[in-house]
Amino acid sequence: MILTVTLNTALDITYRVRALSPHASHRVSEVLERPGGKGLNVARVLAALGHEVTTTGFAGGATGRVVRDLLTATDGVRDALVPLGTGATRRTIAVVDDLTGDTTQLNEPGPLVTPTEWAAFQESYAALLPSADAVALCGSLPPGVPVGAYAGLVRAARTAGVPVLLDTSGEPLRRAIAARPDLVKPNADELAELTGSHEPLRATQDARRRGAHTVVASLGAEGLLAHTPEGRWRAAPPRTLRGNPTGAGDAAVAGLLSGLIENLPWPARLARAAALSAASVLAPVAGEFDRRVYEELLGRVAVTGEVSAA
Amino acid sequence: MILTVTLNTALDITYRVRALSPHASHRVSEVLERPGGKGLNVARVLAALGHEVTTTGFAGGATGRVVRDLLTATDGVRDALVPLGTGATRRTIAVVDDLTGDTTQLNEPGPLVTPTEWAAFQESYAALLPSADAVALCGSLPPGVPVGAYAGLVRAARTAGVPVLLDTSGEPLRRAIAARPDLVKPNADELAELTGSHEPLRATQDARRRGAHTVVASLGAEGLLAHTPEGRWRAAPPRTLRGNPTGAGDAAVAGLLSGLIENLPWPARLARAAALSAASVLAPVAGEFDRRVYEELLGRVAVTGEVSAA
Repeated sequence: MILTVTLNTALDITYRVRALSPHASHRVSEVLERPGGKGLNVARVLAALGHEVTTTGFAGGATGRVVRDLLTATDGVRDALVPLGTGATRRTIAVVDDLTGDTTQLNEPGPLVTPTEWAAFQESYAALLPSADAVALCGSLPPGVPVGAYAGLVRAARTAGVPVLLDTSGEPLRRAIAARPDLVKPNADELAELTGSHEPLRATQDARRRGAHTVVASLGAEGLLAHTPEGRWRAAPPRTLRGNPTGAGDAAVAGLLSGLIENLPWPARLARAAALSAASVLAPVAGEFDRRVYEELLGRVAVTGEVSAA
Repeated sequence: MILTVTLNTALDITYRVRALSPHASHRVSEVLERPGGKGLNVARVLAALGHEVTTTGFAGGATGRVVRDLLTATDGVRDALVPLGTGATRRTIAVVDDLTGDTTQLNEPGPLVTPTEWAAFQESYAALLPSADAVALCGSLPPGVPVGAYAGLVRAARTAGVPVLLDTSGEPLRRAIAARPDLVKPNADELAELTGSHEPLRATQDARRRGAHTVVASLGAEGLLAHTPEGRWRAAPPRTLRGNPTGAGDAAVAGLLSGLIENLPWPARLARAAALSAASVLAPVAGEFDRRVYEELLGRVAVTGEVSAA
């Protein structure tokens, strides 16, 4: 199975309003609720692709119960979330304007995780690793979890011989990349923040020097840029799709993990990840994708690059 | 005890952000949760004044459980909410800008109430009436509850000999006022919508002609205008307070009910209602008030008017 980790899970709520206007009152015409946080989005895309997924991290409070109930109703995802004693899973609210389709995002900060809860998570994670074919560590850290958390989780996966993908940002990324994860998937901003360079080719190279075995940068409409030990590739969808970009990076992560455990060659992995990412933009919520568009794009992603001389 | 009815209860959520900007992403710095819906706000103010209150209406889903848990933790309020089978209590979200204190409101529509649930509520309401000293019917109707609902609830209270206050708007108000409630408390907009007149003196008179025994209109910073069988009065706070006006009308309703069951003369009732209403503007959430300001204002509300010749 594939293990995804979401330390800061969320109840993702999507509201439709006519047009958001500051300091006015709005009737919400439609309410959608989904399990959220990057690792749960990745898990749902993987499950939709037919993979067996176990998902862990923290869940607490009334919002945490809703997230767990929604996961129970999701075929192919096994819930191994660790309960919080008093903290509650955060909500994220996406307010979508009917008129323009534009989205305003409100993100709660997340629960305070106690040292005992963090220790319980690490124990549960260690117990899950032996049956994992790959592990993805995704998203921000909730308050109370040490900034070096992902570095420790990367080391534990490597010790267990399980390939580990890391998708986070800021200081947690900086610390964890030094622990030599198999793959990091920063977006353009995260990559620039890590390396100080806004030039993706140079920045992915720098991120590898910092410890990542492979770097796949997600560059929005420009697709993916991969820097691997076997070579460098760029994968771009045939056209730019308009829609909801939240979750496009998570769909790419799911594509990369799925290609990894199927042992696909890099160009095919990247084509799958780029097609999933583009097809997710058409779905109204993160963690979902338009299957027809995915299948149509899959053969039409342009992958260009070069195999390493070594 | 005083009975308050909230057919469309809510989980009121307050978010603090730096400044709300459409189509941007915001970190919420503070999250507050309160039991919401007008009747629950009224109940909380009454309980804080030392009255014994029972509160009914509907509650369902994960949000309904949170509302009930929060009510359980509220001294002096007994929870007699009727559970919904599948519908969930709506959320209302107030996004407060740190920079200006201005509020943007997002209101979910509320659950669909089935005919069976509506019948169960009516039965529970009839069972509670005999022990009630007064009843307040507050707020909007959730989907599925018939538009004539409040008219029926007013008639049941009158049959049981229990004084009934009505605080709603639109067609439910129009229907229920004809059932001759003891008191209606429209705001300026609701009164104008009911009567077609933007002139409060004329409009309160017209609302009485439509069936209300007494009309107390809440006119924002201008205070209260009362048209009763005993006379007409205006009650105005000594100064306008800046803050959160949500719940000011509910605090006024609590003042009117409290004055009713204590048999206060009208000028004293109106002074209490106007002082509570003004003091609630300083509280960050509806259903609460600044007690120091309330006590300070209580003796300083100007009540002017005339006793009826009859």
